[in-house]
Amino acid sequence: MIRTILDHRSVRKYKADFIAPDILKLVLEAGVRASNTGNMQVYTMVVTHNKEIRTQLWEAHFKQNMVLQAPVHITFCADFNRFSKWCQYRDAIPGYDNFLSFFTGATDALLASQNVALAAEAQGLGICYLGTAVYNADKLIEILKLPKLVVPVAAIVMGYPEEMPELADRLPLEGVIHSEVYNDYSRNDIDKIYFEKESMLIYKDLLQINEKETLAQIFTDKRYTKKDNVFFSAKYLEILEKQGFMNNL
Amino acid sequence: MIRTILDHRSVRKYKADFIAPDILKLVLEAGVRASNTGNMQVYTMVVTHNKEIRTQLWEAHFKQNMVLQAPVHITFCADFNRFSKWCQYRDAIPGYDNFLSFFTGATDALLASQNVALAAEAQGLGICYLGTAVYNADKLIEILKLPKLVVPVAAIVMGYPEEMPELADRLPLEGVIHSEVYNDYSRNDIDKIYFEKESMLIYKDLLQINEKETLAQIFTDKRYTKKDNVFFSAKYLEILEKQGFMNNL
Repeated sequence: MIRTILDHRSVRKYKADFIAPDILKLVLEAGVRASNTGNMQVYTMVVTHNKEIRTQLWEAHFKQNMVLQAPVHITFCADFNRFSKWCQYRDAIPGYDNFLSFFTGATDALLASQNVALAAEAQGLGICYLGTAVYNADKLIEILKLPKLVVPVAAIVMGYPEEMPELADRLPLEGVIHSEVYNDYSRNDIDKIYFEKESMLIYKDLLQINEKETLAQIFTDKRYTKKDNVFFSAKYLEILEKQGFMNNL
Repeated sequence: MIRTILDHRSVRKYKADFIAPDILKLVLEAGVRASNTGNMQVYTMVVTHNKEIRTQLWEAHFKQNMVLQAPVHITFCADFNRFSKWCQYRDAIPGYDNFLSFFTGATDALLASQNVALAAEAQGLGICYLGTAVYNADKLIEILKLPKLVVPVAAIVMGYPEEMPELADRLPLEGVIHSEVYNDYSRNDIDKIYFEKESMLIYKDLLQINEKETLAQIFTDKRYTKKDNVFFSAKYLEILEKQGFMNNL
């Protein structure tokens, strides 16, 4: 168990081999066992094999090759549609068209997704999360025909790895743990926490390629810019509104 | 691995036994190995042992006994404070004071939390998620001294189980999986998906105790009411604003 967790790598190259139905079923069952809010299970997993639909998803995911390569694409959604329909058919009046309910569904969906990812890895499969599921949630909603009260919060591709990447670097544990309460960071703390990362050869090469002076600038100016963040913030909030999750009064 | 996942139960009664530091460290290391966005690791885990602070947390968690019983309380937070400080000290201008960045941090934090939960269970520990981390995020922010750009998204208690509950029921897998695209639910689908749950003796007893006609009414009228959802929606959005995550223009 711990070994599977500690060995995780995001796989970006896949074999064409399909996943046997009983293995896929076991992996999905693992998702369902995750903790969830009040045992309402307010999430949905859309499992897509179809090549044509995956080609549409590939476009929504900024044409990342792995989406075409991997035989399975799973979209994890906050889903209060099923639960609300159940309420309506049982003479109960659902009140889940608000932001808290979205966040509840998102939490349920994300915990389930991590169970699915780990169960897959334990079966020799590889996975990769796609941040684009949030950036282009509107396109996923269209492609996957998601009704109101259903919003994508994460997506993974899954398949047998063609290539296993190196274990990714991480900040030292002390960098992300706080003891008892939050201990805010001094400049010295930041220097220490990022020392190892900033010393890595791969990142030094990146500076040259990107013509930047610091690794942080690659994040702020290239990868996760304020402009993009603001754009996708407004877009995702609009999607929450459109899917019926922003009636907060 | 799969066995640990399939065996999960939320533990609500704990022994006083403390958790050995090396076991706790391994469990936290497991959290750090989870997938995260762009390897930015924009989350924080606040690990609280101190009885006085846990007593304050217990009050914030609507005085659920397990918060006092379990020796460890971990608060998982979206955290762009550390990353933004790093940017500032490296001549880079961070643009992470927006909703997308909050949701990115929340996703990172939740995936890490599920790794921690599973690693703990693999070590014979028990855990329980506390939804109150979101409802009363403002109190957690105060107690744990969380600065701007840090917001609690989940909390768990952890310790050695005093009592192992039965495996919780779940909807049949077909109830939460959609094949290829979303297949919306007919009344007949809903009847089938909820049949087993609605037949369970424990739920039938609940109807009597709560003087309700349907199980759904217990959720809409008692456990997750519209009034509460709307209240906590507005409160959490206000907290996001106050912590500096709502500059979306």
